[in-house]
Amino acid sequence: MSNGDIFVGEVIGTAILILFGAGVCAAVTLRHSKARASGWIVIAFGWGFGVLAGAYTAAPLSGGHLNPAVTLGIAVDTGEWGKVWVYLLGQMVGAMLGAVLAYLVYLAQFQANVQREGTAEGTAESPAEEPTPTLGIFSTIPEIRNPVANLITEIIATIALVLPVLAFGLTEGLGESGITVLIVSLLVVGIGLSLGGPTGYAINPARDLGPRIVHTFLPIPNKGTSDWGYAWIPVVGPLVGGALAGLLYNAAF
Amino acid sequence: MSNGDIFVGEVIGTAILILFGAGVCAAVTLRHSKARASGWIVIAFGWGFGVLAGAYTAAPLSGGHLNPAVTLGIAVDTGEWGKVWVYLLGQMVGAMLGAVLAYLVYLAQFQANVQREGTAEGTAESPAEEPTPTLGIFSTIPEIRNPVANLITEIIATIALVLPVLAFGLTEGLGESGITVLIVSLLVVGIGLSLGGPTGYAINPARDLGPRIVHTFLPIPNKGTSDWGYAWIPVVGPLVGGALAGLLYNAAF
Amino acid sequence: MSNGDIFVGEVIGTAILILFGAGVCAAVTLRHSKARASGWIVIAFGWGFGVLAGAYTAAPLSGGHLNPAVTLGIAVDTGEWGKVWVYLLGQMVGAMLGAVLAYLVYLAQFQANVQREGTAEGTAESPAEEPTPTLGIFSTIPEIRNPVANLITEIIATIALVLPVLAFGLTEGLGESGITVLIVSLLVVGIGLSLGGPTGYAINPARDLGPRIVHTFLPIPNKGTSDWGYAWIPVVGPLVGGALAGLLYNAAF
Amino acid sequence: MSNGDIFVGEVIGTAILILFGAGVCAAVTLRHSKARASGWIVIAFGWGFGVLAGAYTAAPLSGGHLNPAVTLGIAVDTGEWGKVWVYLLGQMVGAMLGAVLAYLVYLAQFQANVQREGTAEGTAESPAEEPTPTLGIFSTIPEIRNPVANLITEIIATIALVLPVLAFGLTEGLGESGITVLIVSLLVVGIGLSLGGPTGYAINPARDLGPRIVHTFLPIPNKGTSDWGYAWIPVVGPLVGGALAGLLYNAAF
Repeated sequence: MSNGDIFVGEVIGTAILILFGAGVCAAVTLRHSKARASGWIVIAFGWGFGVLAGAYTAAPLSGGHLNPAVTLGIAVDTGEWGKVWVYLLGQMVGAMLGAVLAYLVYLAQFQANVQREGTAEGTAESPAEEPTPTLGIFSTIPEIRNPVANLITEIIATIALVLPVLAFGLTEGLGESGITVLIVSLLVVGIGLSLGGPTGYAINPARDLGPRIVHTFLPIPNKGTSDWGYAWIPVVGPLVGGALAGLLYNAAF
Repeated sequence: MSNGDIFVGEVIGTAILILFGAGVCAAVTLRHSKARASGWIVIAFGWGFGVLAGAYTAAPLSGGHLNPAVTLGIAVDTGEWGKVWVYLLGQMVGAMLGAVLAYLVYLAQFQANVQREGTAEGTAESPAEEPTPTLGIFSTIPEIRNPVANLITEIIATIALVLPVLAFGLTEGLGESGITVLIVSLLVVGIGLSLGGPTGYAINPARDLGPRIVHTFLPIPNKGTSDWGYAWIPVVGPLVGGALAGLLYNAAF
Repeated sequence: MSNGDIFVGEVIGTAILILFGAGVCAAVTLRHSKARASGWIVIAFGWGFGVLAGAYTAAPLSGGHLNPAVTLGIAVDTGEWGKVWVYLLGQMVGAMLGAVLAYLVYLAQFQANVQREGTAEGTAESPAEEPTPTLGIFSTIPEIRNPVANLITEIIATIALVLPVLAFGLTEGLGESGITVLIVSLLVVGIGLSLGGPTGYAINPARDLGPRIVHTFLPIPNKGTSDWGYAWIPVVGPLVGGALAGLLYNAAF
Repeated sequence: MSNGDIFVGEVIGTAILILFGAGVCAAVTLRHSKARASGWIVIAFGWGFGVLAGAYTAAPLSGGHLNPAVTLGIAVDTGEWGKVWVYLLGQMVGAMLGAVLAYLVYLAQFQANVQREGTAEGTAESPAEEPTPTLGIFSTIPEIRNPVANLITEIIATIALVLPVLAFGLTEGLGESGITVLIVSLLVVGIGLSLGGPTGYAINPARDLGPRIVHTFLPIPNKGTSDWGYAWIPVVGPLVGGALAGLLYNAAF
């Protein structure tokens, strides 16, 4: 694969991933969305099928990593580091592009993110409501702010992503039938359901950092903090997890 | 494929798609339905598995487009326009047929769509209730009426459908194992979960226009407006999105 | 396939289907179940994955019809009627066996189906509660009792099952990869989500009649009516639908 | 397969299974989890995709049993008992390791499992709350404590797992396309949805016993009882069910 194909593939694939992922968080979070408050099952399947859409689209061009932790795990396993920078660059550009696209899909909802007054009649059904903080649509926020615990969560959750991804290649027939990406996308659904509770499962540095940069600059009313104090954890945790998964895979398989 | 096979395939396939799609909206919306108020996850999987049912059934006859935006994207990509009109005709007829079938499945529920009075005892459990507006079962309604924002939403969501659909053909083994349609149906589930919040994700002109025509003529009690002022957006948006996806695919792959 | 294999396969497969299907209805309905009130999405996936479990298990012995409407549709299509009676016999025996197994899985819950008194403290959390009617765990009950409308619902929903099942065989690669049953099971999830609202989607005469017989004889406290006045609809409707699907398939494909 | 590969495969695979399974129970149960109270559908898919992740990862090394009941069913069927002890040892070690990993992922949530006082303002939104009992995150607890009924539930649910697993091997193409594990994982989702209501579906002695041992020793605040009086049922029930499934498979297929 040429550097150009890898770059284009990772840009398009990661943009689609983040479009779906940030999109489903907007869908569940924002007022005037048909999916508002539709729950964790919606979040987890939305992100998982974002992997399906993005990785199948990117696969013919770049193999569809879409995640620096996956790229790092593969590099640690294979020892081939020459094209890692192309992947990371594509992933970061794609993640920022996807965040902008998700913002555009929910443009009217973001613009309506203002103080809502309760109506005189029927206040129980239509109470006054504060604007919704928007960072959680773009990037992860821990439920309990504890750097050590948050790092551990992201490291283990990323190992639970990258180690199986590396091992899937060993199952006969999976590649030939073309469904490896489907299996990976259901794996990501499972990680969300099971391991996403404490930190919102970044498990992908580009997925968190790219949209956080976009959130910092987008003109969203009442958007709230971009919380840069937390931003290093969803970068460092997944990178450590990806590297550990690569080492573990080399040792065990 | 002969014109006859294409027409029959698209009629049957699109009819099944809309039967499932309008059906699940009826299931979640109407009183006296076991699935009432069962949430966005039900909507998204209902539409997605409607694609699965319709497209697998149509595939041997017409390839199973079921969507003018998909047909347009393929034509833009391949440059073959000769049979486009057969596809579109079949899709429109099928969409109208499917809407009638969904109406028949929920016939008793539609006929019971009248003002319900509260009972004297237990008014909290059984309060008076207005008839349910029914257009949302047939066609899409935006949460915030904003033509520019609504168009952007439909264009991006349709690109997120058609670009991956075009790219899936490039993944080795997917076609041979016969599961491309399964992947597309899960993609549609994902689009619903992630991008359906603002407008209800038409992403298919026939899916919206056909049932809207049917809604205009069906004798449903208290059916409410057919909202023809909005009808151009879920036609134009998906067509623009499908064409852009075809161009983008040609450029990038 | 020998008559013995067909019979054994249909008994085991249909028993597994009904074990899962009646099981999930018990799970969602009965007090002291961890899944109580968990919603329509649980019902639909429970039945669908019951098809997956039962049909994959039966497939090597009988092909895994598990449903007289499917058997009838295939017979109408192929003109081979010689083994139909073996299929139907196995399906009825299996459906009754599966209903007994589901009863045994929820034995303690059925035995606890008695009037519950509210506690003096905390009556809001633990109010007095009537025993739960149990027929809905075994057989279907329409939300609105209207024989014509109920028949139409069951006929259309069964065509939406049997026509795609017949057509799936035409998609290249689906059979070779062994995933036809998976596709059928997701189709059944979709039928439940979209078309199950009015009548609870029998779409299978054995699925409704077998468990209704079992319900009539099982010693369940406060089990309520077995509602034999309705029993003919979920038998006649699916048989008509299966036959129509066979004719339609012959005409269109 | 060497004993070393089997052991390593079962340790890694079972650890991943329990990481996802105990993880999803923590996600739904604990305060300060984004998935709190997200319902039975989340539990069932979380466990099922844990099977997908663990079994695909273990498959190249050990075949990915991850469950003494499966190992026993295969041994009863094939008559090969020589490596059963290696499987069981790996499964028990892996289950304990997975429980520790799930604990680490939810470390901050476990540490915050203390009496919460209500705030003076807004007591309705933030009432005083007791610590959450934690055993249900690690091991199964019956809704109604009735040894005979609980045993029957576990035996039938395990047959519903092991009999299909044995039969899946007979479907042509399933193994060649590599998706047998996907089918098994969806089967486990179905068992959870349909048969998990009474006892929480151990259907796997290692899945219950390993984490219960870990729960006994972990320093969790207010962790509550480890309930050793019930511990024999989720061991004996699944073993009996697995053996019966092996016998039944030999007799019928």
